Amino acid sequence: MPTTALNDIDTSPARLIDHSLLGPQTSLVQIEQLCEEAVEWNFAAVCIPPAFVPRAVACLYGSETAVASVVGFPCGYESTLAKVQQTSELESLGCAEIDMVIQIGQAIAGDFALVEEEIAQVVLAAPGARVKVIIECCYLDELQKIALTRAVASAGAAYVKTSTGFGPSGASCADVRLLAQVAQGKIGVKAAGGIRSLESLRQMQEAGASRIGTSAGVEIMQQWCTARRGK
Amino acid sequence: MPTTALNDIDTSPARLIDHSLLGPQTSLVQIEQLCEEAVEWNFAAVCIPPAFVPRAVACLYGSETAVASVVGFPCGYESTLAKVQQTSELESLGCAEIDMVIQIGQAIAGDFALVEEEIAQVVLAAPGARVKVIIECCYLDELQKIALTRAVASAGAAYVKTSTGFGPSGASCADVRLLAQVAQGKIGVKAAGGIRSLESLRQMQEAGASRIGTSAGVEIMQQWCTARRGK
Repeated sequence: MPTTALNDIDTSPARLIDHSLLGPQTSLVQIEQLCEEAVEWNFAAVCIPPAFVPRAVACLYGSETAVASVVGFPCGYESTLAKVQQTSELESLGCAEIDMVIQIGQAIAGDFALVEEEIAQVVLAAPGARVKVIIECCYLDELQKIALTRAVASAGAAYVKTSTGFGPSGASCADVRLLAQVAQGKIGVKAAGGIRSLESLRQMQEAGASRIGTSAGVEIMQQWCTARRGK
Repeated sequence: MPTTALNDIDTSPARLIDHSLLGPQTSLVQIEQLCEEAVEWNFAAVCIPPAFVPRAVACLYGSETAVASVVGFPCGYESTLAKVQQTSELESLGCAEIDMVIQIGQAIAGDFALVEEEIAQVVLAAPGARVKVIIECCYLDELQKIALTRAVASAGAAYVKTSTGFGPSGASCADVRLLAQVAQGKIGVKAAGGIRSLESLRQMQEAGASRIGTSAGVEIMQQWCTARRGK
């Protein structure tokens, strides 16, 4: 059986993973543990609430794990000014990545130009950071997903991201495939929401995701270690 | 059977109601309809996403319905600076009421002084607005609820509010009763989350709530009209 680089068992999935903790009851102690795990497993990033960014930046100093935080999360209906101010603050605190939520109501109404304009303002507010744009696929039809992926690319963001994890459903392989097709490699695709196993991660990766948001990063790495030992 | 002012069938519940629409997929058209309904029924306020505040302020100009919007909603884990900036912007746009969420992780950790300090900063940022503070009861034990209600009162807010409606459970009569007992009339209690009938509204009111957040305001008023006709 041929193996590709993608599903080669020797290739660690660690650098795909945004180790995420975004529940409303998240505490500082949990964030400190999350950062320790991220360093131990060499995850790409931690994805955490804004209030904990200063602590995470301190915890991850000198490591290869970036600090990502969220803007307009999870509902996306803050004002553009508020999103821009939050983004600017997060970058100044040391976030290298910003996961923002679009104004979903605008997207449903078909006002893609307004959505793109807001993303562009957020991108401008953090020139040194990578912006990932959450379009919350569960509320959208196919044409909306296509138009939004184009808007995300045109606005200068780095990734289009499927889901917040707060909606009625998270990432699907079909959505990741569609977004990756439209993105044509110009921007990355981040899959998030409900990805809790190595198998699910590999499926998303094969569908075209180059980043995976999950709170089950440690379990996934343990599954990978077990699979490699059993090879 | 004796009737009190509270459950007197002749007393309309309209002025208790914050007519609320806070789903992530909320659209401008839905907000316009919400405002029309609020004027028709003379609700106390509409409670809406920040992005729609300018439109709601225009729709409700000259009416007795206030515009309320949300800060740090629904997770509460934005930075204090972000909450203060959002609050200030919302007041300048015409919000008379601000429903903010505390940093729940701080409350669970017992850092009530930090929670109070943040509320006080939000209150200061909107001197002309009433601030309602959502403590999200579903994540708290009784002692935390008591300490937080005291913190909300000390910080100069106008209301303590039970829930965002996004948690695993919403308002309970037991919580409203506890919060009202601690508040001793110094601040109001707003019940929100899962209140979808006149009966449920009256139960919350009898437990001590002086404001009710609900997306079922129209249905509740129709139930009240029917009950009054059938008297």
